[in-house]
Amino acid sequence: MNPKGALLVGQAGGPTSVINASLVGVVREAASSGYTQIIGMRHGVSGLLTGELVDLGAQPPDVLTRLHRTPSSALGATRHRPTDDELGIAVRILRQLDVRSLIYIGGNDSAETLRRIGAAASAEGYGIRCVHVPKTIDNDLVLTDHTPGYGSAGRHVAILTRDAGRDTEAMRHTDPVKLLEVPGRNAGWLAASSALAREAEGDAPHLIIPPETLVSAEDFLARIERALAKHGCAVVVVAETARGRDGSPIGSDDPTMGSADAFGHRRLSGAASYLSALVASRLKVRARWEKPGTLIRTSGISLSDVDLAEAEEVGRAGVRAADSGMTDVMVTLVREPGAVYRCTTGYAQLAGIANRERRMPAEYFADDGYDVSRAFVDYITPLVGGPLPSYGRLLPIRLRR
Amino acid sequence: MNPKGALLVGQAGGPTSVINASLVGVVREAASSGYTQIIGMRHGVSGLLTGELVDLGAQPPDVLTRLHRTPSSALGATRHRPTDDELGIAVRILRQLDVRSLIYIGGNDSAETLRRIGAAASAEGYGIRCVHVPKTIDNDLVLTDHTPGYGSAGRHVAILTRDAGRDTEAMRHTDPVKLLEVPGRNAGWLAASSALAREAEGDAPHLIIPPETLVSAEDFLARIERALAKHGCAVVVVAETARGRDGSPIGSDDPTMGSADAFGHRRLSGAASYLSALVASRLKVRARWEKPGTLIRTSGISLSDVDLAEAEEVGRAGVRAADSGMTDVMVTLVREPGAVYRCTTGYAQLAGIANRERRMPAEYFADDGYDVSRAFVDYITPLVGGPLPSYGRLLPIRLRR
Repeated sequence: MNPKGALLVGQAGGPTSVINASLVGVVREAASSGYTQIIGMRHGVSGLLTGELVDLGAQPPDVLTRLHRTPSSALGATRHRPTDDELGIAVRILRQLDVRSLIYIGGNDSAETLRRIGAAASAEGYGIRCVHVPKTIDNDLVLTDHTPGYGSAGRHVAILTRDAGRDTEAMRHTDPVKLLEVPGRNAGWLAASSALAREAEGDAPHLIIPPETLVSAEDFLARIERALAKHGCAVVVVAETARGRDGSPIGSDDPTMGSADAFGHRRLSGAASYLSALVASRLKVRARWEKPGTLIRTSGISLSDVDLAEAEEVGRAGVRAADSGMTDVMVTLVREPGAVYRCTTGYAQLAGIANRERRMPAEYFADDGYDVSRAFVDYITPLVGGPLPSYGRLLPIRLRR
Repeated sequence: MNPKGALLVGQAGGPTSVINASLVGVVREAASSGYTQIIGMRHGVSGLLTGELVDLGAQPPDVLTRLHRTPSSALGATRHRPTDDELGIAVRILRQLDVRSLIYIGGNDSAETLRRIGAAASAEGYGIRCVHVPKTIDNDLVLTDHTPGYGSAGRHVAILTRDAGRDTEAMRHTDPVKLLEVPGRNAGWLAASSALAREAEGDAPHLIIPPETLVSAEDFLARIERALAKHGCAVVVVAETARGRDGSPIGSDDPTMGSADAFGHRRLSGAASYLSALVASRLKVRARWEKPGTLIRTSGISLSDVDLAEAEEVGRAGVRAADSGMTDVMVTLVREPGAVYRCTTGYAQLAGIANRERRMPAEYFADDGYDVSRAFVDYITPLVGGPLPSYGRLLPIRLRR
């Protein structure tokens, strides 16, 4: 038997637009590493437990080429947290398959699952290298400069915000306020990425509401009024997890957010829906809200070429880590200092990553918390890849009389 | 004074991704037609009344080139319906400006406004040629094969549905049902365009709910259950104007739709939100819904090249119509018979267009009303332009044992 054994890989957690590039990176790197088999599990650890496995080493090259730019998780994903009994079963199956390298592509929860599998294998004396390959659009993993998936999702948010800005500007006589609700869990990274929508002074977004900023109704409404006075319209990008002054989610029963009688169902609405109703009832202007939701994370038309390349590279680096005998590590992205963007891969201990989350640091926000800083723009700009679609404007040339 | 006088152009109604291409077509065609001035009104007829006018003839060529692919209405739009008094004022201003050709780029309501301006001018003995240039993502104007704006919006819906399909497939263990709410007023053209998302048997959408199909809760739930049994997930594209058996909007207080107690605010939710709650409470499976809303209509990353070219061409044809002395007409798109797509422009009387709307004909639906027919796919395919992003799949190769 080949002493290297088999390599097993899975995808877990919410999909991203580039998570398949990481999978392809794993398969391509492993192909030249001498593994007996390269195995994929369907729906992460669930597929391992149910025996839903696929031979990845036998996939023709053109399948991998097409998969590289295909959004969402081709193997299927899972949010299942295995029980201790299931961990025991998983280790038995790993042993049967002679899996010696286990690569798990996922976020925070998946890192914890991988750590537990590694611990269970170790407890049973089965030697296996466990390597976590990061992905999340939320960019909230610690110990890495950023996370594959974030660049493309951030690009998507920026483009949609630019489009919403042009739309709202044109329709300002009818619907002068627009709220765009975006994902991001407990961190504002995705809401903040909307700042890249701006091409000129006065462009949308006019207000960014990350979950890190605690919002009061009066403060919010005053800012909307100022934007309306200045621009004739107001485009707001609000995190779905935006919070009121007492820290509870906006749209829930938060007394600091005031009442939204015109709408009537404050307990159950989302943040954008709630804030729209607040604008309509208090400022007496029409407000629209959109919720692209999961469409942000899985998109074939907003791929960042930088994100795509890095996603493949972290997959490859995961295999190299296992090959070199590392275990219980996550691949990280390490940005080199300097004005020119350069990023390499590194490794961090899994134990330091699981169950932790990275909020946006204070220096990435504007002082009032409703916008981003120059430092954040410098941070994110290279991650979203090539230039966004750039839009024209009529010159304000007066008539000859 | 030049007998040809000035040309005035405006944009009205909801923006589209290609409405600026029509504006550019008007300006480019008019530039070589000998008009004394080419004038744009900001926010449609509102800008005419308030004197917010811009010299379009003096715009540098590169401004027009950039504008051509810039979504939303660069002049600004309006939904204002002028009063009879305002019509009188408008005619006076047209006379002052010596406007002899008036081009209005818009939908149904704008066609009616243009017709009324023409009638008011005629009543006061002022000779002006009024030409309507069509736009609407809803594709619901009569007497034209299709409407500029629809191809790009349909392309966007199809891409988002394809993306949502891949996302839901990957996450079927967690969130097996997804509902995508799309615009379209009283016609199913946009919901129907989601059918182009399919690359293979079993691909999303698994259910299309246009407003033309009256839905009962039991029928809907039975179809979701069948899709779940067959595909492990269900992706539904539902028109925001979807209707229950009694014809009232889904999400309103329609007794035929049953109760959605788990959610609690049936009177005020939208169609997708309501149906998600229904799935969750009745089938006990998790359902997510997304509402891209106006993001569908204004997008720089889903332009159909065919739509873009036709949008410019209808603008040019509008000027040619006025130049040839036609008035009270709308430019139409005329599809030539045959397997190869060819489309030219024609003209129809404004009086036959205003205040009418074109639903999807019965032969464009599948027999049960929850999908489209082959004839519809043949109809729409050329309109969305080049191929959509095409996605790969792993081959289901079993392990060697």
